[in-house]
This record gives sequence, C-alpha cells and structure tokens, in this order.
Amino acid sequence: MSLRVTFLGTSGAVPTTERAPSAILINREGDRLLFDCGEGTQRQMMRYSTGFTVSHIFVTHLHGDHILGIPGLIQSWDFHERDDTLTIHTPPGTSRHIEQLTRLGGHQPGFPIRINEVHPNETAVRMEEYEVRVFETNHHTKSQGYALIEDDRPGRFDREKAENKLNIPPGPAYGQLHRGETVTLDDGRVIDPEEIVGDPRPGRKIVYTGDTRPTESTVDIAQHADLLIHDATFADDNETRARKTGHATGFEAGNIAQRADVTRLALTHISSRYGGYPDPILDGATDAFLGEVFIASDGQKLEIPFPDADQ
Amino acid sequence: MSLRVTFLGTSGAVPTTERAPSAILINREGDRLLFDCGEGTQRQMMRYSTGFTVSHIFVTHLHGDHILGIPGLIQSWDFHERDDTLTIHTPPGTSRHIEQLTRLGGHQPGFPIRINEVHPNETAVRMEEYEVRVFETNHHTKSQGYALIEDDRPGRFDREKAENKLNIPPGPAYGQLHRGETVTLDDGRVIDPEEIVGDPRPGRKIVYTGDTRPTESTVDIAQHADLLIHDATFADDNETRARKTGHATGFEAGNIAQRADVTRLALTHISSRYGGYPDPILDGATDAFLGEVFIASDGQKLEIPFPDADQ
Repeated sequence: MSLRVTFLGTSGAVPTTERAPSAILINREGDRLLFDCGEGTQRQMMRYSTGFTVSHIFVTHLHGDHILGIPGLIQSWDFHERDDTLTIHTPPGTSRHIEQLTRLGGHQPGFPIRINEVHPNETAVRMEEYEVRVFETNHHTKSQGYALIEDDRPGRFDREKAENKLNIPPGPAYGQLHRGETVTLDDGRVIDPEEIVGDPRPGRKIVYTGDTRPTESTVDIAQHADLLIHDATFADDNETRARKTGHATGFEAGNIAQRADVTRLALTHISSRYGGYPDPILDGATDAFLGEVFIASDGQKLEIPFPDADQ
Repeated sequence: MSLRVTFLGTSGAVPTTERAPSAILINREGDRLLFDCGEGTQRQMMRYSTGFTVSHIFVTHLHGDHILGIPGLIQSWDFHERDDTLTIHTPPGTSRHIEQLTRLGGHQPGFPIRINEVHPNETAVRMEEYEVRVFETNHHTKSQGYALIEDDRPGRFDREKAENKLNIPPGPAYGQLHRGETVTLDDGRVIDPEEIVGDPRPGRKIVYTGDTRPTESTVDIAQHADLLIHDATFADDNETRARKTGHATGFEAGNIAQRADVTRLALTHISSRYGGYPDPILDGATDAFLGEVFIASDGQKLEIPFPDADQ
C-alpha cells in the first residue's frame, strides 16, 4: 500500500530559484491529494512527474503563496477536458475567495468543483482506508493544518499456529479469521479470530501544519506520526520575527516533533533570506528533536513505510 | 542605448517542463517593462536574472496564462517593501478583473498600483525617448497588442565637414547643431544644422501581438519593425484549430512578418502538443517569411541593435 510524499514547493512567502511556493503532493495508492497550491505548482508536478490528476486540494490558509497555483491548474485541467469532480477543502469563511480563484482563468471550468469549508477537529474527507482530519494552527489569519490518518490494519495472522497447532486447513477460513470473523470448521469446531490474530496494528499518519506558530493542537494530532511537515521559516536568529509573523523556527518545530514523538520531521516554508544555506534552521531542529529530521527540498520524494517491519 | 528582450514564458495555454506561460520582459536602458505575466513569471525573472523592478505591465488579454503571475509578483514586491508605483495597462473594460488580481495575495499591497484601461490606436505610456502604442488584435475575447516605438534619433553629424570644410571650432556648438539648433559662431557666421546634420534616423521598434489571428492592424503597426513577436501556437496541421481558437499558425505569422517587412520574427505561444519538437511551426514561418525567424525559448535574451550600423 504505497504512500508517497512529493515536496513541490518549499519556499517561504517569496520564492527563490531553488524553491517554489508551498505545495505538497501525497499519493496514496493512486489517490493524489494536494496540500496547498502555490504559484507554479502545475509545472512542478510536470517537472517531478507526480502525475496530473488530483481529486482533493487542502488549503491551509489564504495567503497568496499557498493558493495562487489553483487557477492555473484548473485552467490546464479544463484544457485537458477533465470531467471528475475536484474538491477544495478550505478554512471556515473562505469559500467565496476560493470560488473567485476558480474563475480567474477566464472562463467557467467544464468540470464540477466542490468547495468544502471545514473546521478544526472535523474530518475533511473520509476515504476507504483513511481520512484527512483538520486541526487548529496559529498564523494570525484564518488557518488550519491537515493530517492524513490511515485506519488501523488487522492484526498479524499467526499462520504457524493456525496450521500446526489448531490444525485449521488452509482455505477461505484464513481470510475470514484475518478479517475478524468467527469461523465454524467442517469438523464442527468454532474458532474465534482472537485465537490466531494479534491486536490491530496502527496505519500511517502524515501531519502538515502549513504556516503556524508552535501549537498544542499540533502536538496532540501528531502523536507518533510517521512524518510531521512543519513550518520552519526561520532559524533562532529570527525568533522575534517568527513570533511577529506567525511562523516557527527550526528549534520550535523540533520541539513540537520531540513532544509528539514523531518518526520523521520535515522542515519547510524556508525563508528566502537563508538562500542556499538553510543549515541554521536544521541545527535548531536537531537541538530539540532526537529523531530523523531534514529540510525539505523541491522535488524530494519520500516513501512512508508502515511502522512495523512486515508491512 | 541598450534595448534587450528576455523571453520569460513561451508556452501556449498549458505550460510544459520547458516552457512557462506567456511573459516577455523588455529592458530599455534600465526601464523594465513586462508584456503579459503568466503564472510563475517572478521565478522566471529570478532564474534568468532580469532584475526584479518593473514599472509597467502590459496585459494583452485576460486569459489565465497571460495574467496569473501578477498576484504573486505583487506579493513579492510587497515583501520587498516596494514604494514605486506600478502601472498595469489593460484592454478596455477589464480593470475590475485586474483590480481583483492585485488583491489576491491576501492583503492590500503597500505601494500604489495604477490600472490604465487603454484602447487600440492609443498610446499606453509616453516615456522620454519612446512610447508604447496599442493596436487591435483578434482573439475571440477583448484583446490587443503592444508596440514599443522609439523616437527618431538626430541625423548623423558630419564632423569631417564641420571641422575641415566649414572650419567650425570643436566645442559646444557641435552639440547644439546635432540637437537641431542654429548656431552663431564667434566670427559672426550663422550655421544651420541642416548643413552638417543628416536626416533624422528612425529609432527601434518591437511589436508584440499576444494571442491573435493574423490581422491587418499588425501588418500596419509592424512596418519595418526590428522585432515582431507573433502568436504561432500551431503548425499548418492545425490551421482549422488555429482559426477556431483565435490563434495563428507559423505560416500565418510568417506571412504577416513578410508583408510588414520586419527584420526579425520571434514565434511564441507554442502549443504543448508540439512538445520538444516545434519544428513544423518554424517550417511554416520560413515558407512565408524571408527574414530572420526563430522559435522563442524560455530564458532567451535578444539585444536589439539600431537598424543603421554606427548606432
């Protein structure tokens, strides 16, 4: 069950030659979800071969560097004669602004666009094996983050015990038991799934904050996340500026990651003032966080494995 | 007196990995003028080191691939604490739409933005030694082209004749005569500038159509242009489609260039269907036009010399 993150834009408000404005594409087994969509996102998708069909866009807030790629993408989809519905999830009270964006290309798109205003602590969308939850952030404007959370998977099936201890003949009964169903065998014995199936195993979790100060809500939702993608616009030298502009430093992002006990931390929304040398941001994060941490770069792809070894 | 054209975006409506949407920057001796401003123009300016200060934007029409870079540029200028006025020239009846674009970044820009609705056959802006004129195009929506036209320069000064035949002592009188003033020498002689200054010499002319069918108005304004930048979205194989969508083929663009007797023809707005192989468009143009012709590419820079040798 593949789960791949592609960083399409990792710059702060002002892009650079190396970094485009904010956009992250998550591909879960063919479902393409876009988190923020800064100017130029469509060309980044082409450049990094992510595939072009996206079913859902999740907007963290309405600043230009997070949304200005939406109209161009819509225009291009329209040229490619898209039919499928696009759903844009956006903070409460912002749907009129988003709606304006969708019509900027110059004409009404020929495919349906659904705008879904969604509040923190709600589920933005429920898919077959996962959902995207909304959580509160703090960026001096209406803003929120999103967490892709997979459902628990069935526990481990003890084939050895089933075959050799309980003498259950291999066949459809194995699948039924693994799915949690009680089975009556041909010899009359009744087998409960608990006898050979372990506890449910957690799915994977990716949390993306968008622009934000450090918040308790991030610590809460990111508990044991496989990947936390956090605002790290500044290094410690600009802590005051981070506070004033509603952003986080590398150290602050690291601290959140440490408290949430996440597996990996990706730092993004890197201010152009650090140019090609964002190391001070990374240094701050590694001071606070003992797990794996990196500064995301445009085009970087990350496969997220299941936390347990056998997948 | 430098006059340099940088092609920032040469794609059709849908960009490709090689071509960004429409934008052309003309730098005339430090004045930076932007003609159209497709998505991603600000990063193209960074990538191709054009300098970032632009005083005027000229919009040919309101399709997304020609204007969606405006909000991001404005946001970045705002972050850089720009003070200077930006003037956006745009077709009649479109200022409300442009005004909407300028506010999309999320907050009111801190520098003045003037929106100038301007009609075909008017002067959009008059500068010290040149002007930008507007001309009619035909693109199934409100559209127009722009021509940068330099003033005539003073005629050639015949220094040899001044010094050796008329025995005018070198000094301020030379400058006065060259500027067209009559001069009375110390010995009482009155010299008319016509005696040693040739006929005024034409300045340079660059004509940009934006998206259009071939039109007589382009032939008229492009007479003897140093550079004509013409829509050439399609090759001959898509002539019907060109007519239907309000674009031109390479052959049609070449035909206009030939009839206008221009020096150079740049083909742009290349449809993504030709991918990395737009040669059929070029072939059509060279069939019709005997001058120098090329398919513009992103990042290409062109210095426009004066038509006469000595500059």
